[in-house]
Amino acid sequence: MGGEANGSYGPCPLPDMPEREVITLAHGGGGRRMHELVGTLFAPLFWRGGDRHRKDGAVLDVPGGRLTFTTDAYVVRPLFFPGGDIGMLAVNGTVNDLAVCGAQPRYLSGAFILEEGVSVETLRRVAASMAAAAREAGVEMVTGDTKVVERGKGDNLYVITAGVGVIPEGREEPGPEKVEPGDRVIVTGDLGRHGVAVMTAREGFAFETRITSDCAPLNGIVEDIYRRGITVHCMRDLTRGGLASALNEIASFAGVRIELEEERVPVGDEVRGACELLGLDPFYVANEGAMVVILPARWAEQAVEAIRSHPAGRRARLVGSVAGQVTGGRVVVRSVLGTYRVLDMLSGEQLPRIC
Amino acid sequence: MGGEANGSYGPCPLPDMPEREVITLAHGGGGRRMHELVGTLFAPLFWRGGDRHRKDGAVLDVPGGRLTFTTDAYVVRPLFFPGGDIGMLAVNGTVNDLAVCGAQPRYLSGAFILEEGVSVETLRRVAASMAAAAREAGVEMVTGDTKVVERGKGDNLYVITAGVGVIPEGREEPGPEKVEPGDRVIVTGDLGRHGVAVMTAREGFAFETRITSDCAPLNGIVEDIYRRGITVHCMRDLTRGGLASALNEIASFAGVRIELEEERVPVGDEVRGACELLGLDPFYVANEGAMVVILPARWAEQAVEAIRSHPAGRRARLVGSVAGQVTGGRVVVRSVLGTYRVLDMLSGEQLPRIC
Repeated sequence: MGGEANGSYGPCPLPDMPEREVITLAHGGGGRRMHELVGTLFAPLFWRGGDRHRKDGAVLDVPGGRLTFTTDAYVVRPLFFPGGDIGMLAVNGTVNDLAVCGAQPRYLSGAFILEEGVSVETLRRVAASMAAAAREAGVEMVTGDTKVVERGKGDNLYVITAGVGVIPEGREEPGPEKVEPGDRVIVTGDLGRHGVAVMTAREGFAFETRITSDCAPLNGIVEDIYRRGITVHCMRDLTRGGLASALNEIASFAGVRIELEEERVPVGDEVRGACELLGLDPFYVANEGAMVVILPARWAEQAVEAIRSHPAGRRARLVGSVAGQVTGGRVVVRSVLGTYRVLDMLSGEQLPRIC
Repeated sequence: MGGEANGSYGPCPLPDMPEREVITLAHGGGGRRMHELVGTLFAPLFWRGGDRHRKDGAVLDVPGGRLTFTTDAYVVRPLFFPGGDIGMLAVNGTVNDLAVCGAQPRYLSGAFILEEGVSVETLRRVAASMAAAAREAGVEMVTGDTKVVERGKGDNLYVITAGVGVIPEGREEPGPEKVEPGDRVIVTGDLGRHGVAVMTAREGFAFETRITSDCAPLNGIVEDIYRRGITVHCMRDLTRGGLASALNEIASFAGVRIELEEERVPVGDEVRGACELLGLDPFYVANEGAMVVILPARWAEQAVEAIRSHPAGRRARLVGSVAGQVTGGRVVVRSVLGTYRVLDMLSGEQLPRIC
């Protein structure tokens, strides 16, 4: 399952889901409930004994090379929001899932579930945005599908992308299993912009902000890091569930304690203010153009410099380190006063239909 | 876009779609309206100058080999029907799209759009069916995604699969451009079972039948054909829009006249009876375990024999031939009385949400 839901198939066993339970919005929120669904229902059926599913994409063995393959469904509401739209999101989300696997994104598919009555103009805007995003990221849209459902059985349109990327010869695949004590943790952008931009664009929100989604392709940054010969242990994009969920997945899988310095984590003033009003924690809010990079300490400064040379990485910061090993993993945040709080996996739903 | 909608990007220019038009169920029906949508809206945006989209999947250039990549969204209603369910359909549909491209299906992704309130039991049944279908077809489910939408914004669940297949070294890719006068046309199974099984399973249908969907993987048949050294020009699975739409796409792309012998086309008595009651033409009804194979005349008998050795191909028949070249292409059916009728592309909707 797309990135967010993967880490917990590792060391932590999950209780089985009761048959009579029904799906709630929290099962799509990127937190504990979604992990439960994926880990107990899908994983045992689809991934017997394999470990392909631990990352944002699966590595495929094909003649002559290693490919990465990923998919994501996009149901964001509204379709258009400050800084982006569902089409751009669908392309960048899949590009980023491939990139954080260490792959060069190459080919994308796009499937559409259209609700009867959606306008051709809307569809054209979304498709044009996908085409533009694909050009920007250097990927090719090569195949697709269109289905139409009756009024009231969809919500204008849903977009589902899948992507194939190539892992260059000689490149070691990054992954949570490579994370080790002493590693440094970098965040490539300021947190929370996507989630807040989408929430404030929804009807019924009384305030407007100038906050725009950070939606952007990250493959340029990833390639630049590798081009400079920097060793990377793990990368993860910070979508549903935000930084907290991504780090919890990694910590849980690797069995490590990750410590963040609160004042170093980049959060814009406007986002911080909006989060206070909305009752959200920026550590849990979705981003669509930011990732966490975990790598050996000796490469950290050089990596931050590389990331900052890209528009989407201008606010990159070294935010913490891998402090040691601990069964089950743990993520903690150290405040400016030196106190620690545990950054737990999101439980329940935070922001429904944020991507 | 998945198979059905592809042929018409070829020689036939389509009128542009008006911006103020809205999407109707007919845009998902596999006929003329869907071709218009795909050909005029998506194709110019996504597939500039390329011809990857002419088939059921895209051929990818990757280091060391040729891969095929395809995607399909499944919105069939009801989720469970005689002979299959949405999960089995989603796996076999994608497996078959890869197989008819001459590829050996290898890896599948599965994305789920769940409506709030759908039961975990339902989801588990669907996922278990996907796992079983994947095992039967010899493919691996390697990645996926789950999103949840509010009640009334979906219909229990939608499944979107994408697939990657490998084209073996030395195998020539089949395609409509290879079809030529003198070729023979084989249909691998009796027509209309999937469409009729789904329609009669819907609430409000006054009659029941024993008709079951033909839903099955076709990759075993395809591999057997190649293993015997048979030359194949074109294959196409007969999903939305049925045999008529598949042949019209091929005829249109290749600029040929395809002639079918009506009495040779396999249609079961029960399906024929149900189609009469429902006002359907079996030539246009969806199948999910049948394909058309077009190949040089000298290979036809041997191919029919190979296909019949498989359970899904027991009713395979040589049904017609490619009679000559004609601008724009044409498909005609010769009755037992020797009269001809034109088998046109489906216009408007026949069976909504059949796959």
